[in-house]
Amino acid sequence: MIVVMEPRATEAQISKVEEYLISHGFKINLNRGEVLTVIAAIGDKRLINGHAISSLEGVHDVKFVQEPYKLAAKQAQDHDTVITFPNGVKIGGLEKPVLMVGPCSVEQEYEGLLKVAIAAKEMGCDFLRGGAFKPRTSPYDFQGLEEKGLQYLARAREATGLLVVTEVMDTVDIPLVEKYADVLQVGARNMQNFKLLKALGQCKKPVMLKRGGAASIREFLLAAEHIMYHGNPNVILCERGIKSFDDSFTRNTLDISAVPVIRKYSHLPIIVDPSHGTGKRYLIEPMGKAALIAGAHGLMMEVHHDPDHASSDGAQSLTIEQFKEVTRRLNKLIGRIDYDNKMNS
Amino acid sequence: MIVVMEPRATEAQISKVEEYLISHGFKINLNRGEVLTVIAAIGDKRLINGHAISSLEGVHDVKFVQEPYKLAAKQAQDHDTVITFPNGVKIGGLEKPVLMVGPCSVEQEYEGLLKVAIAAKEMGCDFLRGGAFKPRTSPYDFQGLEEKGLQYLARAREATGLLVVTEVMDTVDIPLVEKYADVLQVGARNMQNFKLLKALGQCKKPVMLKRGGAASIREFLLAAEHIMYHGNPNVILCERGIKSFDDSFTRNTLDISAVPVIRKYSHLPIIVDPSHGTGKRYLIEPMGKAALIAGAHGLMMEVHHDPDHASSDGAQSLTIEQFKEVTRRLNKLIGRIDYDNKMNS
Amino acid sequence: MIVVMEPRATEAQISKVEEYLISHGFKINLNRGEVLTVIAAIGDKRLINGHAISSLEGVHDVKFVQEPYKLAAKQAQDHDTVITFPNGVKIGGLEKPVLMVGPCSVEQEYEGLLKVAIAAKEMGCDFLRGGAFKPRTSPYDFQGLEEKGLQYLARAREATGLLVVTEVMDTVDIPLVEKYADVLQVGARNMQNFKLLKALGQCKKPVMLKRGGAASIREFLLAAEHIMYHGNPNVILCERGIKSFDDSFTRNTLDISAVPVIRKYSHLPIIVDPSHGTGKRYLIEPMGKAALIAGAHGLMMEVHHDPDHASSDGAQSLTIEQFKEVTRRLNKLIGRIDYDNKMNS
Amino acid sequence: MIVVMEPRATEAQISKVEEYLISHGFKINLNRGEVLTVIAAIGDKRLINGHAISSLEGVHDVKFVQEPYKLAAKQAQDHDTVITFPNGVKIGGLEKPVLMVGPCSVEQEYEGLLKVAIAAKEMGCDFLRGGAFKPRTSPYDFQGLEEKGLQYLARAREATGLLVVTEVMDTVDIPLVEKYADVLQVGARNMQNFKLLKALGQCKKPVMLKRGGAASIREFLLAAEHIMYHGNPNVILCERGIKSFDDSFTRNTLDISAVPVIRKYSHLPIIVDPSHGTGKRYLIEPMGKAALIAGAHGLMMEVHHDPDHASSDGAQSLTIEQFKEVTRRLNKLIGRIDYDNKMNS
Repeated sequence: MIVVMEPRATEAQISKVEEYLISHGFKINLNRGEVLTVIAAIGDKRLINGHAISSLEGVHDVKFVQEPYKLAAKQAQDHDTVITFPNGVKIGGLEKPVLMVGPCSVEQEYEGLLKVAIAAKEMGCDFLRGGAFKPRTSPYDFQGLEEKGLQYLARAREATGLLVVTEVMDTVDIPLVEKYADVLQVGARNMQNFKLLKALGQCKKPVMLKRGGAASIREFLLAAEHIMYHGNPNVILCERGIKSFDDSFTRNTLDISAVPVIRKYSHLPIIVDPSHGTGKRYLIEPMGKAALIAGAHGLMMEVHHDPDHASSDGAQSLTIEQFKEVTRRLNKLIGRIDYDNKMNS
Repeated sequence: MIVVMEPRATEAQISKVEEYLISHGFKINLNRGEVLTVIAAIGDKRLINGHAISSLEGVHDVKFVQEPYKLAAKQAQDHDTVITFPNGVKIGGLEKPVLMVGPCSVEQEYEGLLKVAIAAKEMGCDFLRGGAFKPRTSPYDFQGLEEKGLQYLARAREATGLLVVTEVMDTVDIPLVEKYADVLQVGARNMQNFKLLKALGQCKKPVMLKRGGAASIREFLLAAEHIMYHGNPNVILCERGIKSFDDSFTRNTLDISAVPVIRKYSHLPIIVDPSHGTGKRYLIEPMGKAALIAGAHGLMMEVHHDPDHASSDGAQSLTIEQFKEVTRRLNKLIGRIDYDNKMNS
Repeated sequence: MIVVMEPRATEAQISKVEEYLISHGFKINLNRGEVLTVIAAIGDKRLINGHAISSLEGVHDVKFVQEPYKLAAKQAQDHDTVITFPNGVKIGGLEKPVLMVGPCSVEQEYEGLLKVAIAAKEMGCDFLRGGAFKPRTSPYDFQGLEEKGLQYLARAREATGLLVVTEVMDTVDIPLVEKYADVLQVGARNMQNFKLLKALGQCKKPVMLKRGGAASIREFLLAAEHIMYHGNPNVILCERGIKSFDDSFTRNTLDISAVPVIRKYSHLPIIVDPSHGTGKRYLIEPMGKAALIAGAHGLMMEVHHDPDHASSDGAQSLTIEQFKEVTRRLNKLIGRIDYDNKMNS
Repeated sequence: MIVVMEPRATEAQISKVEEYLISHGFKINLNRGEVLTVIAAIGDKRLINGHAISSLEGVHDVKFVQEPYKLAAKQAQDHDTVITFPNGVKIGGLEKPVLMVGPCSVEQEYEGLLKVAIAAKEMGCDFLRGGAFKPRTSPYDFQGLEEKGLQYLARAREATGLLVVTEVMDTVDIPLVEKYADVLQVGARNMQNFKLLKALGQCKKPVMLKRGGAASIREFLLAAEHIMYHGNPNVILCERGIKSFDDSFTRNTLDISAVPVIRKYSHLPIIVDPSHGTGKRYLIEPMGKAALIAGAHGLMMEVHHDPDHASSDGAQSLTIEQFKEVTRRLNKLIGRIDYDNKMNS
């Protein structure tokens, strides 16, 4: 931690800061410049109360030199986290990228979901996604089928062997969702619902954590840290677009650079959702490819058997035919990425 | 709703959109320009499934001309919402702005909280704030005293007569928090925790909803709509800063313009939190004054008996002495705003 | 400057950084923590080439502890800059806030401009504003009257005694604009047109620099530094709204907190433009008041004799009648701010 | 254009808007809903003065249904713009993506530049980039060699046959830069320097326009429109990162989705600069690949013979060795993209 004093800080103020740091177990090193005095404090940030230092008299700024997450950091372990599912599917590290596909919401008729699941299986995808509990900006929009939706997902899993990813929105629903899902998803709007993160830390199943629309990468990794800290090491990160000043052509700004950044600073798997990330059907393929070639461990894509009548997000869903076409090309790219990785190493 | 067709949309595509809209109960009006065809659809947006229209072939864009919230909109009632508490305190409309003060977190020693409460009472404030459940970005930070914190707040209320505002983070905690609090606060990170909003819609006590760091004013009012839609009309909005590209000098960008905008488009009370909104003690007074003169129905300010040793957010808390000084000036301004309002009307 | 090494930086890498810093005239202080090594370097940042340090092997991050502007910084002089015009009008420091009013663009008929100028004079304003050179996002919009516009402004000055503020967009136009204007304005889109800033540094007249829509406060002060560095100390800063993710209700997000922040960190005068900053007529008064009470040295407001037929920005212009009404209340507030300042000091 | 009236707009207000539109040559269509009245106006937006409509009494909002650029729009011509240089190099459409490489700034010693140029030629690149005029945030940073730098670039062109791309910052420098450069670059900070855009519209050489850090795609295309409107159809667009709330790990947020969006809505070539776009050397390769696979017509990359001693932006420059390694892989990808394109069509 670096404490930068105000240009006109007094000797007494400097001493008070030094004493405070020493009394909290820090080793300190005083650096006097012509204009500024800087105190470098070496120790465990967790030993002091939050922003207490910055409120001491004469302190101009406090800069932290260590990333605040520990368990999610690359240094925490000497290998990337690879999550292995009971059926042998793996995600993370140098494993082949996975595809998670399905409708935004699970809807009244089971047949539509089944059609999508069969197509997904046929194209070599490993995961079926679909929302049974739907976070909706407006109370007037469709809110999800709840348990019935979960049952549909489980039936489609039985029929196809796909693994099920679905969202949980509230701590009280965790037991129910955990009963049906293979991966529990935390939506972007809940990324900092710390009670939910804590409770998911006590789950046995992997958690897929979507990045909040205004969450920095640091906050994103800290949210994963909450889950890991409470006992669950199996966190899959998912970039799904951030808010920017420009939403004329895309719903969000899909931050592809989050992929190589997170692969450098964390050992956790990171996938990308180009459907929510752009909000436009025609952008799923180019942005999906961009994510994969930048190192994503997988993609999540919205596919609907009849997007014109979807309960939610039709505009960003592929039809089954479009999905097959796009996935043929994605699969070819995935094949070559494997080859490149071996070549490059 | 305005449906803008692609420049080269075919007659068949235009007809399909028209039929779709008519079959969902809309009256339509076709406008053909030299380049673009535009379909104006008059009816209830709630009659159609989400973004279904935008996914029809040939549709370029869909523009909504009506604000998506109903209950929170100015037009929903012919007067501003004024919430009256059992002790006669009122918030909203043309009532005198209220002050809500207290520490960020309720801490181990009750005496500190009591000191703040006594000072608040002495300065004419009406509400004591303090967090018993704390949403923390890092799992290594102080997480709150939970029920013990609530009990402290209740004791301080008994001692001073102040009303208690405190945060609830999870649906399961609502009964507990409701037992002790006069106003239940929803934190910025939970603004779109829709399960929580729904559950609070069934509470009897007023809810204070903080604006999410990346929430547009429209999303903010829609979050309030969730609470109102589920039965609770007593929502107090709170602007507390949005994320912007510049966080060098302030933690967030406090959006003062949200105050007059919300007063124009909604009947709900809107208060401002300059402590979280700026993250800097020296900005509380100027930004608090700015909020009040722009029409805020109140301010929420952090005050701590010993900010250097606060469990959280010391840097943005006033000491009791500073608080008194600042509040003397704020009270003077509040007095004059009353006078102005009468004059201007 | 603080150099943070990568967690696994080698001794050789650390030594290389130390040598590099020493060879560039820095005094260094090595701080070894359990995880990270940090090198505090005391010296003149200007002695090293840009980001050279961050590209040395093993360097994780470089943190600058000193603000990069010198001349614009509070510490550069022991008093606030107060600019005094030949007619005795003053701006800055503890002087009474000034009002700059006029149409967005100077238009074909001189009479309209004159009406506004007469009303401005009548209400006690000191400056007439109006664009003769107009930066327009679209080439299809009105581009300004150029010299004829400047002549109109000069005629209105003669008629009323108001000082003239007008924009200059290009280095080649400076002699022309300087001939007519009392203050040369740099538009937000040109805030980092460094050739223009440099050339204005050689002007004798004060410069009003508008903050770019995506400029941090640091970049804003550095842009002022360019002007000052090249010889012109008379820079007036103007906050006019920043871009954020929410432009539904306001064109920009007016950053009122920039006012007290800049008053703390710089000695330069800072005014606010609530017309461009919000894009809405009804927000000029509340946001103008908010700016003044937060410490602004003045306001710039758009007033047009017939906004329905304005060449630009009619929606954010006040009519002459509205202007008089608003200004009566602003003047009352300005009177009281004086009184408060004396009281508080 | 769609004019949405206020919920309580009077008949007189509605009539006034109708008359206004008709008198300006619009055909109108009135749509009365239960709550709102909407007027669809078909005609040429250029016939009316700016925002005049929105300032009429009773108008709630004006929505434009047509993109404001004409010449830059896909519909303006039936084929993509392909720019062909005298030496046969082509950029745009379905041509093979180009690589533009070189140091951020041209520096004192010519030999370094030459080394980079030779390596670039060897790797099959077509363009040498380098700044002779440097826009610098701080006046204390290196400002460029000016004409001497241009001469160095010309010498390196002679030695290698590469085409030269270099920035022009001011209208007065255009003749000088045009004498030496093959492509004139407009920097991100000058994207809305309309005088410069206009003057470049009168140039004979192609212009490379970098997207401003806070420019929407619409504003970006409108900036290109300025150049085209004044006579120069050869505009190359360059995405180089936008400002977002998160600059901890990357300097900007590189908006890869701008590539497929612009390829859909415009016929102009669009390239990407992953060096400035991320500010980090290790991100150049993954983000460069992502841009190419998403459809970019080329990449601009910073390469320096000795980044540790670069005058600017060393941290985001590749060494010559790194450049060769990265480019070997980029070239392989470029080869395969060609193949894919043929396959997909």
